[in-house]
Amino acid sequence: MVRHVSCRPSPAVRRGSCECEPRELRRCVGGAAMVHGWSCKPPVKRRRDAASPAAGAAIRTRVTRENTRSIDNSSAAAPALGFTGTEDREAPRRLVPGSPKSRSPSSGLVGMAAESESCNCDGWAARDPSGVLSPYRFSRRTVQHTDVSLRITHCGVCYADVVWTRNKHNDSVYPLVPGHEIAGVVTEVGSDVDGFKVGDHVAVGTYVNSCRDCENCNSFLENHCSKFVFTFNGVDSDGTVTKGGYSSHIVVHERYCHKIPDGYPLEKAAPLVCAGITVYTPMMRHNMNQPGKSLGVVGLGGLGHMAVKFGKAFGLKVTVFSTSESKRDEAISLLGADNFVISSDEKQMESLKNSMHFIVDTASGNHPFDPYLALLKVGGVMVLVGFPGEIRVQPATLNLGARSLSGSVTGGTKDTQEMINFCAANKIYPDIELIKMDYINEALERLVNRDVRYRFVIDIESSFR
Amino acid sequence: MVRHVSCRPSPAVRRGSCECEPRELRRCVGGAAMVHGWSCKPPVKRRRDAASPAAGAAIRTRVTRENTRSIDNSSAAAPALGFTGTEDREAPRRLVPGSPKSRSPSSGLVGMAAESESCNCDGWAARDPSGVLSPYRFSRRTVQHTDVSLRITHCGVCYADVVWTRNKHNDSVYPLVPGHEIAGVVTEVGSDVDGFKVGDHVAVGTYVNSCRDCENCNSFLENHCSKFVFTFNGVDSDGTVTKGGYSSHIVVHERYCHKIPDGYPLEKAAPLVCAGITVYTPMMRHNMNQPGKSLGVVGLGGLGHMAVKFGKAFGLKVTVFSTSESKRDEAISLLGADNFVISSDEKQMESLKNSMHFIVDTASGNHPFDPYLALLKVGGVMVLVGFPGEIRVQPATLNLGARSLSGSVTGGTKDTQEMINFCAANKIYPDIELIKMDYINEALERLVNRDVRYRFVIDIESSFR
Repeated sequence: MVRHVSCRPSPAVRRGSCECEPRELRRCVGGAAMVHGWSCKPPVKRRRDAASPAAGAAIRTRVTRENTRSIDNSSAAAPALGFTGTEDREAPRRLVPGSPKSRSPSSGLVGMAAESESCNCDGWAARDPSGVLSPYRFSRRTVQHTDVSLRITHCGVCYADVVWTRNKHNDSVYPLVPGHEIAGVVTEVGSDVDGFKVGDHVAVGTYVNSCRDCENCNSFLENHCSKFVFTFNGVDSDGTVTKGGYSSHIVVHERYCHKIPDGYPLEKAAPLVCAGITVYTPMMRHNMNQPGKSLGVVGLGGLGHMAVKFGKAFGLKVTVFSTSESKRDEAISLLGADNFVISSDEKQMESLKNSMHFIVDTASGNHPFDPYLALLKVGGVMVLVGFPGEIRVQPATLNLGARSLSGSVTGGTKDTQEMINFCAANKIYPDIELIKMDYINEALERLVNRDVRYRFVIDIESSFR
Repeated sequence: MVRHVSCRPSPAVRRGSCECEPRELRRCVGGAAMVHGWSCKPPVKRRRDAASPAAGAAIRTRVTRENTRSIDNSSAAAPALGFTGTEDREAPRRLVPGSPKSRSPSSGLVGMAAESESCNCDGWAARDPSGVLSPYRFSRRTVQHTDVSLRITHCGVCYADVVWTRNKHNDSVYPLVPGHEIAGVVTEVGSDVDGFKVGDHVAVGTYVNSCRDCENCNSFLENHCSKFVFTFNGVDSDGTVTKGGYSSHIVVHERYCHKIPDGYPLEKAAPLVCAGITVYTPMMRHNMNQPGKSLGVVGLGGLGHMAVKFGKAFGLKVTVFSTSESKRDEAISLLGADNFVISSDEKQMESLKNSMHFIVDTASGNHPFDPYLALLKVGGVMVLVGFPGEIRVQPATLNLGARSLSGSVTGGTKDTQEMINFCAANKIYPDIELIKMDYINEALERLVNRDVRYRFVIDIESSFR
């Protein structure tokens, strides 16, 4: 059930809250399960099965069964949600501790009346550290001379969305619209934009701004610019808090927009700009594209399954390390891994010592590092792309094998475009579970429980129709 | 005073023990300070001042004052120790836990009588975990067809000598003759040796054997061969426990022998084959020889001062990080560093964040890693060459700067020869304090207290005359 239709919360959003303007807020009758009321006008009729948890499950199952390369994104199977006339409150002016920038008048958010009038974007937002998402309407800036505006068709669901909707880093600014794996279609370009035109298929990843003038920006390492602006919950140069891809459109400087080659499915393109680039960047940095060499991939989630795909495309011999036996068959038959090892199996781990050239560690849970590092050959490199707890390593594990433990986070704009092109040229597609927007709370819960193969992607296009 | 002369222990060896054959052992009168007795026959008369601690101190002071490039190695100032007719017991046949190889008859150590007869090498050994060294006579193998025998002229003093003489790793086999920075002159070569001839100046480093047939050996990474044999306290392929360079001669397979170019001082060559190669190898592996880039060197001891010298020779901008203000002047004026930072100075450390391309961390004491890693630019590499306690690092420190923490230990034979040649070509000389053998116990104690600039080198040639 979709609450915007019936004013009765579905289980998926039963803990949700609504940030409608107080003057518009009226409590709905939702029974004991409902925490907050909301106002949604005018409700749009829709098929009941499309928005119910059961429907979400059905979509997921179908997608999984049919394999991702045959996903049917037709709107008939997943009718859209309606958001019309609701104008939610913008974030407060003092946005992030230590970043007291006030908004520029040019942002069109001078007063509440103006805010209400300027709201032009539908989205879903978390309102507090419960992390529960619910509909939210807000304002995007108008297209500036170097901007590209895109109608978002799809948005991938990253663990970062859990981290910030639930305020795990104590820096979340609510209402918070997550999402940084954005794919869509260009609807408008600024006067100075020369790289894109209306109708282009494009993607926006984990950041939407940087200084464009520092050593890192000049090396196309914008992801390491000190003025890097995260696609959501970041403070942009005009002082506004950025809002992500769980929304109907986005406006970004063209530099942070990437072209999706013709024929590459938009729903598969979305995860490339976070999950994909996050593993591609360190793999290229550490020369993991050497056919015949060996690669270990720790963890088989959104990032891990992309590392396997890249590894195979590079001609590597790929071994997957997982805690879950249930992933063995898919790792081998679906993803093409050469070997699958349960990482708690000490005997197998022992037998693989000194055997790997590279390891990509995608695990974000706390885990030991010495057992994996010991698998590396002399001079081998293990790259950490997750954010587990403190790393503890015995010096001898590094020294005696001249091994390296490296880190990496997302990638620069040049590498991102290169990676998208590489995926298109080599027919590398993320495996996804396509969901509707109203399934997001369950999806995030499943993501926390590692119950996704291998990336949730929100069908924004049909959800916000 | 030297106990083999007078049967009265000098303060330097007053905690020492003697491993003479029990049948020969008779207790000497040494007063309360003497723990064990010994038998030394026939004692050789020598000048009292040569062996006394005071004499050792005088030699040290003189060398330090004169600077290492003007060291006078004349025997007049430091008369030799005599070891004639003393035949100490060889190490037990079961040598190292888990390595129960018995000696091969061909080693000439079949019986006790044979052992006594075959002892052909003078040295100093530790007899127990006190680590105190005292004179010891033992046997070296005769030269085989691929062997080189060298008269040792100098041996550097490495912290490894402290580690194993004091049984820090619980694997020391006593009597233990340390020393793996060996320089000397070839006295004999086997029939199949083609790389060396009698009279050549040569060096032997941290290992004296490996399988010569594995992936690592075939890549000249013999230091990572699983059958690598440490120059001392290692179990060689014939089952004997290796004995190091605190001795009058050594016999090694020619592969582990390195030519010292004409004119390069032997006493300066000795530290190259451990301290030198230990920092040179990772610097080359991680491409630190790029002029104009920046290098941090953590710790200014034997390894650290060589890292500074290599860094300057490579054209890097070198910053030394030390806990001791007392090293500032020398770091800048003697070693040529561009900058000197007290690592506990948080303000200075903060100002250097994201500024370095490379760091070589030579510190073996426990220390934090995040503050140093944070100094690296994007993609920067910090190489650990010491053996501190457990490494603890925040993942974000690695990830957000795409940084690497690497380890390294000594180097392969090809790199070692390359490094020696590089030093000769670029006039890179370790700074040393030349000592006599009888000063070794004080030297080790000073080494533990970091009171050496920057490497002790034992003048073996004149000590064992």
